[in-house]
Amino acid sequence: MVAGAKTTAAGPIKYGMVGGGQGAFIGAVHRIAARMDGHFELVAGALSSQKTRALASAKELGLDPARSYGSYEEMAKAEAAREDGIEAVAIVTPNHMHFPIAAAFLKAGIHVICDKPLTSSLADAKKLVKLADASDRLFVLTHNYTGYPMIRQAREMIAKGKLGSLRVVRAEYAQDWLSEELEKTGQKQAAWRTDPKQSGDGGSIGDIGTHAYNLACFVTGAVCESLSADLDTFGKGRKLDDNAHVNLRFEKGLKGTLWCSQVAPGNENGLTLRVYGAKGGLEWSQENPNQLWYTPLGQPKQLITRGGAGSGDAAARMTRIPPGHPEGYLEGFANIYGEAALAIRAKRRKGGKLPKGAVFPTVHDGLKGMQFIDACVKSDKKNCAWVKL
Amino acid sequence: MVAGAKTTAAGPIKYGMVGGGQGAFIGAVHRIAARMDGHFELVAGALSSQKTRALASAKELGLDPARSYGSYEEMAKAEAAREDGIEAVAIVTPNHMHFPIAAAFLKAGIHVICDKPLTSSLADAKKLVKLADASDRLFVLTHNYTGYPMIRQAREMIAKGKLGSLRVVRAEYAQDWLSEELEKTGQKQAAWRTDPKQSGDGGSIGDIGTHAYNLACFVTGAVCESLSADLDTFGKGRKLDDNAHVNLRFEKGLKGTLWCSQVAPGNENGLTLRVYGAKGGLEWSQENPNQLWYTPLGQPKQLITRGGAGSGDAAARMTRIPPGHPEGYLEGFANIYGEAALAIRAKRRKGGKLPKGAVFPTVHDGLKGMQFIDACVKSDKKNCAWVKL
Amino acid sequence: MVAGAKTTAAGPIKYGMVGGGQGAFIGAVHRIAARMDGHFELVAGALSSQKTRALASAKELGLDPARSYGSYEEMAKAEAAREDGIEAVAIVTPNHMHFPIAAAFLKAGIHVICDKPLTSSLADAKKLVKLADASDRLFVLTHNYTGYPMIRQAREMIAKGKLGSLRVVRAEYAQDWLSEELEKTGQKQAAWRTDPKQSGDGGSIGDIGTHAYNLACFVTGAVCESLSADLDTFGKGRKLDDNAHVNLRFEKGLKGTLWCSQVAPGNENGLTLRVYGAKGGLEWSQENPNQLWYTPLGQPKQLITRGGAGSGDAAARMTRIPPGHPEGYLEGFANIYGEAALAIRAKRRKGGKLPKGAVFPTVHDGLKGMQFIDACVKSDKKNCAWVKL
Amino acid sequence: MVAGAKTTAAGPIKYGMVGGGQGAFIGAVHRIAARMDGHFELVAGALSSQKTRALASAKELGLDPARSYGSYEEMAKAEAAREDGIEAVAIVTPNHMHFPIAAAFLKAGIHVICDKPLTSSLADAKKLVKLADASDRLFVLTHNYTGYPMIRQAREMIAKGKLGSLRVVRAEYAQDWLSEELEKTGQKQAAWRTDPKQSGDGGSIGDIGTHAYNLACFVTGAVCESLSADLDTFGKGRKLDDNAHVNLRFEKGLKGTLWCSQVAPGNENGLTLRVYGAKGGLEWSQENPNQLWYTPLGQPKQLITRGGAGSGDAAARMTRIPPGHPEGYLEGFANIYGEAALAIRAKRRKGGKLPKGAVFPTVHDGLKGMQFIDACVKSDKKNCAWVKL
Repeated sequence: MVAGAKTTAAGPIKYGMVGGGQGAFIGAVHRIAARMDGHFELVAGALSSQKTRALASAKELGLDPARSYGSYEEMAKAEAAREDGIEAVAIVTPNHMHFPIAAAFLKAGIHVICDKPLTSSLADAKKLVKLADASDRLFVLTHNYTGYPMIRQAREMIAKGKLGSLRVVRAEYAQDWLSEELEKTGQKQAAWRTDPKQSGDGGSIGDIGTHAYNLACFVTGAVCESLSADLDTFGKGRKLDDNAHVNLRFEKGLKGTLWCSQVAPGNENGLTLRVYGAKGGLEWSQENPNQLWYTPLGQPKQLITRGGAGSGDAAARMTRIPPGHPEGYLEGFANIYGEAALAIRAKRRKGGKLPKGAVFPTVHDGLKGMQFIDACVKSDKKNCAWVKL
Repeated sequence: MVAGAKTTAAGPIKYGMVGGGQGAFIGAVHRIAARMDGHFELVAGALSSQKTRALASAKELGLDPARSYGSYEEMAKAEAAREDGIEAVAIVTPNHMHFPIAAAFLKAGIHVICDKPLTSSLADAKKLVKLADASDRLFVLTHNYTGYPMIRQAREMIAKGKLGSLRVVRAEYAQDWLSEELEKTGQKQAAWRTDPKQSGDGGSIGDIGTHAYNLACFVTGAVCESLSADLDTFGKGRKLDDNAHVNLRFEKGLKGTLWCSQVAPGNENGLTLRVYGAKGGLEWSQENPNQLWYTPLGQPKQLITRGGAGSGDAAARMTRIPPGHPEGYLEGFANIYGEAALAIRAKRRKGGKLPKGAVFPTVHDGLKGMQFIDACVKSDKKNCAWVKL
Repeated sequence: MVAGAKTTAAGPIKYGMVGGGQGAFIGAVHRIAARMDGHFELVAGALSSQKTRALASAKELGLDPARSYGSYEEMAKAEAAREDGIEAVAIVTPNHMHFPIAAAFLKAGIHVICDKPLTSSLADAKKLVKLADASDRLFVLTHNYTGYPMIRQAREMIAKGKLGSLRVVRAEYAQDWLSEELEKTGQKQAAWRTDPKQSGDGGSIGDIGTHAYNLACFVTGAVCESLSADLDTFGKGRKLDDNAHVNLRFEKGLKGTLWCSQVAPGNENGLTLRVYGAKGGLEWSQENPNQLWYTPLGQPKQLITRGGAGSGDAAARMTRIPPGHPEGYLEGFANIYGEAALAIRAKRRKGGKLPKGAVFPTVHDGLKGMQFIDACVKSDKKNCAWVKL
Repeated sequence: MVAGAKTTAAGPIKYGMVGGGQGAFIGAVHRIAARMDGHFELVAGALSSQKTRALASAKELGLDPARSYGSYEEMAKAEAAREDGIEAVAIVTPNHMHFPIAAAFLKAGIHVICDKPLTSSLADAKKLVKLADASDRLFVLTHNYTGYPMIRQAREMIAKGKLGSLRVVRAEYAQDWLSEELEKTGQKQAAWRTDPKQSGDGGSIGDIGTHAYNLACFVTGAVCESLSADLDTFGKGRKLDDNAHVNLRFEKGLKGTLWCSQVAPGNENGLTLRVYGAKGGLEWSQENPNQLWYTPLGQPKQLITRGGAGSGDAAARMTRIPPGHPEGYLEGFANIYGEAALAIRAKRRKGGKLPKGAVFPTVHDGLKGMQFIDACVKSDKKNCAWVKL
């Protein structure tokens, strides 16, 4: 029971949000995640690119009207100028806006917490990395699944050599909500996700494939060197992939596969990860995230539960309540915000350091995700040829 | 995606807490639940009966020192006197203190949100009901499992007659953390739960059995008329039950059983509910709370997921995020706080009413829980004779 | 991979069958079970009490017409007189006929393999025990679930003390096929099972409750001393119970509960067993019989699979194929026939003994089952008073 | 309850076996499968290529010594010459012997039931197809998993259009028994499976990959047009693949993936199949074969059980016992023998036809399996280039 504890004494970090107004989904998730452990307080926003919606959304959230902005540019400028200006901004717009917004706030001296994928193009991503690296501000990318306690547990076990040398990793992220052409109905979530102008070159590979890829890399700690991808577009008239089979080659002989799909009926958020090594195997499923299956070779399969027997320090850092009381998606998301809060507070101190074990996805992970999307598209165009990463 | 939305504009309700200081467990849960949707803000506390611990705990939580009190009496008095005094108090002490504290705050005109079981004796419970009924303040009992969306779904389906006339209900709540005599090690949670002075007459039946009983009643909507109980104490030297088998007879011929145990190795919080009627069956498990199994007689078993196909309005009211992204224990708990917030805000308005579907456990449910404990103890003493409720 | 091996060299044991003609269910199961490992060969039968059906059934099965009998009396007499007469008989009639048929064959010097429950009345059961004890012929009762490898595994682990002193055993056997009054449609299986004349005093408690009771006793190795039962008849106009909640008190403080139901929609053959002791817990479900969950207190839950790591000698004796290839109900049933074959062959040898570990349910287990039924009925009539066994 | 019924009147078909002596695994499985429903009787054998072992094995099985042969050539000749000679032969040797043995028996006018993969080389496979096509004898390949009732159910549902146009099929077959170099210990099963001389060019892809491939084709009814394969050999010094990732392109735009591995700790026989179409999805796992998950798009997921609600004719043909009593691997295997028996008996009749729905894998399916292996090896050598089938 460590997560969220003992830091509230310092008072919440004031932050603002860009995007996330009425009709959005992920913005609300960020707000709950930010609030859950008392680490953050929302005080400003440019909640929509449509001014009326932005203001209405701000009112709904109880924001000070003076700090409800009609554009992110205005917000960055105004907040930077205020003595009590925001210390961080959460960017939750469609992908193509991540870059200019992040750039504006970094330049304004404000920490950035940005949804994934990093940008809508690899070129933008590279620029953003340069900007972020040159800045002394933090860039936190919300690959939220890395915040699940049992994902931390899996990563720790692998790092400690419990699986021996790694051989095979299998990542899947399957959904079914785009089985029909939902975008034609005007549904906002479907519309921008299937629009190359807003999403970039990746459909399912950008929206969910990057999550699976990030998770495979995060848990195994391995570097992916090349990939081969077969992209499908089953929805009629759709311009981006809605299903993809990707083969991955990591360093040291680790082989991987990744399947992402938004057209697989019966799957809601079927994000699963399986890792096999010479000495053991691990299996995890996002829809039942408090459990991790561990098989030491030659022994019975074990069920390691969050906070239960066999669960170690890395998971404990991410845990609020005892085993058997499930923590879920929002808690995992809040853990990323918790790590961000630790990092922001460390930044305040001269020479401040992150506590042991603290880790969060950065702009560099975001770049890897963009390279993944880019390589998938290239490989697919060459009939699944291997493409270096 | 309804829960937690659209009410934050009004600003959070200021509340205080009694109990829940360092070393406590459920206090932290209440605080997260209260905070999650932005409905409540903690501004005062008497966080421990030990003054030093109370103050240290308050400091840790960032409370204004002026509103960190050394006793609940002092706190009730002082907060009632303040213009910006708390509107509600959360009581999270051991059971025997619920009554005097609740009484003090009700008298001070402050809404009460109280952990369960209601009190440590049936006599206290009856007095408290009178007090609460006579007061115009709210009394919310945190039988938190009633806040799970799929529990609301089950309740709704039964109320709509999907199962036909009810025949059998099976409730279980199994844990294993008291398999050994943990209380002898000084562990605080185990110590007070096995101490009749602090817990009252019920051990496992009070701590977890009341949850299972409450859930069975809440979901079936049926009134339990009598019970027969066989209580066990397997821990050596333990004074209260740590395992119980209870048979229940409800009105209209519904038969039930309830098993609670804190000595069943392999069970963390194995709270499950199964209900069978002439036309169908339902099965639910707390450790995987986003799923509800429904079998219409003569058809294949169906998996209804929170927010997914087949999931209705009652569940939707309790839901934040789309299906496949699990919500957990804290969200369920926060839903009780959400209902409490609705009720408190309704109270503010002249003739204010709760929105359709809003429901929360009250002092009367608490009384039923105490009657359950009392009847279990009586029945056990008479070799499991049937005792009326 | 032991079961069924190495004994076929001796050639199959010739056996006959009483009951099990057209329209029957369990007869076909016995025939497959008898044949599966080559231990038995069906050569004679009185397959129905209706002569025409008996002959038609025999023809269908390819029996020698000379050995297809119109009555069991005739069969017992004729087979006893033949030099190549049957060595064993399988009795698969409705319950009320078990006694006279078994008596006739035992008297004729023929081993008896009889379906459960033993008889339709306790009085008959007692007589049959006397007869069987006085005979030098074998009496094998097909409590087939004891033939499942992982049930043997559970029994072995408990006998070796892996769970420490036993505290709680939970047995369930839930079905839904009698949720409506199927017997009114003329369905043969439903008709005789709900008819006291053919079934005796027990409905669900006789048909499936005895299985659950037998399994609880077999696995724990504990003696049940008394019980309290609450019987229900939900089907309209039904004369026997179709649902029962039974509390059990075993020696040495072990407490048990048993639930059997034939009116629980969503349950096909939901026979489950859970055993908890001071040091660990075990959980098993008949519908996935190749798995056994084992939790050593304070360690992660383990999945022991038939033939896999952690699976021991007792299970291995009952196993044909490697782990991961499921064995099912028929294999478990065949294991009882395998044990019977071992016993019959041992009988042929002077001073022949069963191999180590061989065990099968006998007439004495059958008597215990009848005492269980009798006690349930008595307890229920006395409003669930405790009745000694 | 159809499988195995009503045909025993005709008496069993006499058959012989080549291979399957002491130390073998699959031979015993074939014998149980052949015997289970009374369709076949083993009367002859050349049970090992080592004469002493062959005779000892025959003795153990109770074969007539006159019909226990030292070689398959001798056996084919002698049995063809006997008036009561075998009508069929089961070939259960290592792969490289399938071709000459099958050829010998077909030439001798004896039906062949052969284990998979068909041969050890594609060239042999093509020759065998010619031979078998030219013969009027039957050639049954025991791709046993096609005998599982719920696999038939899945196939029927897809054929009826329940999933709409197919989009994605995911087949997996994962084991862990070769995680270490078991072949170095002299274990017979591991030794021949990792030896190219006995197995051919395929390691895991031949041993288990062909099963998964066959199942994907059987269930979807789709023709695979090309594949891309990445083969791995993780075991040190091993000459054949022990892990493979294969991408499949079927006609009509259906995309597939296949993973087979014998080095994935925690997997015993993890054969799973998932099929997704425009209107629904199906999921099945061999380790729990009595269940089939079906999701009609936009409706709750359904659990279809063997013999239960929603289970149709194709499954019923393969079913012996009611739902909830699991049938397993041996029953599925016996179903192939059941289909073979129907076909053999139909052959006896002039113009005899198979009953409606009867279907079994043939030499042509075997050829497809060999083409699969061959294409996998070719693709792997070309760095996973697409290879036509």
